[in-house]
Amino acid sequence: MVLGKSLRNHKTTRKLVVMIGPHVSDPCKGVLLKIFDEVLLVDVLDSGDSANLALMKRPDLGVTFTKLHCWTLTHYSKCVFMDADTLVVQNIDELFDREELSAAPDPGWPDCFNSGVFVFRPSNETYSKLLQYCAEHGSFDGGDQGVLNGFFGNWATADISKHLPFIYNLSSIAIYTYLPAFKQYGGNAKVVHFLGQTKPWSYTYDPKTKRVSGDMQETSTHTSFLQDWWFLYSSSVVPMMVEGYGDQPFHSGCVEVHLEFQSPVKENCDHHGHWPGSWSQINSHKEGGWKGSSSSHDSHHTEPYMSPETSEERKQKWEQGQADYMGMDSFDNIQKKLDAFLK
Amino acid sequence: MVLGKSLRNHKTTRKLVVMIGPHVSDPCKGVLLKIFDEVLLVDVLDSGDSANLALMKRPDLGVTFTKLHCWTLTHYSKCVFMDADTLVVQNIDELFDREELSAAPDPGWPDCFNSGVFVFRPSNETYSKLLQYCAEHGSFDGGDQGVLNGFFGNWATADISKHLPFIYNLSSIAIYTYLPAFKQYGGNAKVVHFLGQTKPWSYTYDPKTKRVSGDMQETSTHTSFLQDWWFLYSSSVVPMMVEGYGDQPFHSGCVEVHLEFQSPVKENCDHHGHWPGSWSQINSHKEGGWKGSSSSHDSHHTEPYMSPETSEERKQKWEQGQADYMGMDSFDNIQKKLDAFLK
Repeated sequence: MVLGKSLRNHKTTRKLVVMIGPHVSDPCKGVLLKIFDEVLLVDVLDSGDSANLALMKRPDLGVTFTKLHCWTLTHYSKCVFMDADTLVVQNIDELFDREELSAAPDPGWPDCFNSGVFVFRPSNETYSKLLQYCAEHGSFDGGDQGVLNGFFGNWATADISKHLPFIYNLSSIAIYTYLPAFKQYGGNAKVVHFLGQTKPWSYTYDPKTKRVSGDMQETSTHTSFLQDWWFLYSSSVVPMMVEGYGDQPFHSGCVEVHLEFQSPVKENCDHHGHWPGSWSQINSHKEGGWKGSSSSHDSHHTEPYMSPETSEERKQKWEQGQADYMGMDSFDNIQKKLDAFLK
Repeated sequence: MVLGKSLRNHKTTRKLVVMIGPHVSDPCKGVLLKIFDEVLLVDVLDSGDSANLALMKRPDLGVTFTKLHCWTLTHYSKCVFMDADTLVVQNIDELFDREELSAAPDPGWPDCFNSGVFVFRPSNETYSKLLQYCAEHGSFDGGDQGVLNGFFGNWATADISKHLPFIYNLSSIAIYTYLPAFKQYGGNAKVVHFLGQTKPWSYTYDPKTKRVSGDMQETSTHTSFLQDWWFLYSSSVVPMMVEGYGDQPFHSGCVEVHLEFQSPVKENCDHHGHWPGSWSQINSHKEGGWKGSSSSHDSHHTEPYMSPETSEERKQKWEQGQADYMGMDSFDNIQKKLDAFLK
């Protein structure tokens, strides 16, 4: 939602499409429809095609498969995929001048591209080849970034025009790794990517003081981007959520938001308008264009989608705003635990 | 010395040149002359040319200036510069097929190249322009990497052939940042660059067990490269040092090395054959070729060369194997402090 709003605010001329999983609540879908031109429901593990059945033998590639699905959006001629943990800070329509597969280098291993932002051409043929590649080679990092870097293996050496400048996918991790470079070049940032375990929605925000709180260790050097994210979320997205949820309670992540918006704060539903355990995509189109995003994506540590989780993994997901609100982490279950604890 | 030996072991056909500062001891120079084809003494802050005088107003660029000096080696037509904290693990003569300025991306800000390994063409004209650039723009990171990335500012966007594959400058930091990529591509490593505060010579080594000891936190994932470094150092460099130092004591960094080489271990002289507080270069040439290296270089945290040091800074330098063995950290001074402490 924040990414979509940031694209709108910077006056994109392209269509915006978001792809969501089955767990997204109806009020959230309503808000998404206000921001995006198209909301596509993706059933992550049951696409029903034979290629996918082959992949079903590799449940660890579930998330990966879902992201690759973007190549089937053949009613667009060219698209830009964007992860849900990205934020647009300048108009980026010029990305549609680039060819498949254009992407920015990953700061971890810079001969790989980061798959959080990339330009591609939807094509059923490419999609089939990608699935075949998945089945034959898997993913070297267990996620989509490994698959895509394997498939588009000549990115590092073939064509400089397919290297997007780093300012189109400015990983927050790079800011504190090489601060002087960020100070030199960061002012031209166009897209910020909140890589790492701590996402913007892991923090708490006070709309009155416009201050973000939480463990700021990782982000001490890029608080201004984090504040941009929260300002946009609290000022533009939360009011739509309040309207969408009506009498239903939801947790906004803002302190005292119940005073501001007359809505009680409870932990029983979709968190910040993100998509727990599933993912989403955003699409931009004019002559043909597309943007996508994934809230559960972390380029270096993608979790298998349906794997059995340990308590620690669940805690981590909860802290990343990916709690299983409909299952293990439902309001009823939490209420029971609290009651047991208070007895 | 280790870098030079690693180039020899991998049968480079090019000339090797090392550039050293004024603090390198005579026994060390003797060892260097056995490994390198040419040993060049560089007086870091008094080159005597007018361009340098202009730079003297910027003492913070001392180290930077020294590295740029490599462009004056016009008796070679093409060269490869290498930092002293690099280790060659495969023959890399093919780098001489590349043009100026070829370098590998920096994992911190991958639109910058890392200046630890780069291909260049010596030229007095380029040298003058570089000095002029220094005087006008300075360095955005206070070191040579900032200057060179400013001067060769179109590296990221102009010519893919000037992007050396990351395996030619595999920063140790990248290994643990994106371990799956290292596992996928690291097996082809040609040059390892021990970036970061902890250098190979910060550790201790037991030649009998072939084990490296010390704070392994940073290096837990690349101990094999660290062991390669130490095996080469202890088996090839230390014996030459023992011979070169004769009756003079020196500290090898190996435990019980005095039993193996009949040489007492004391902390009063040049450490591991590296060049305290100064730097060095290594040169490789056939039709014309050159390699250089700097022991005090850290691409992200280069210290001003002649700045007055705090106690903390001295401690850091000591821990990095850059103690001021002839001055503040001389054996006599340490003995005095120990005596005072033991009273």
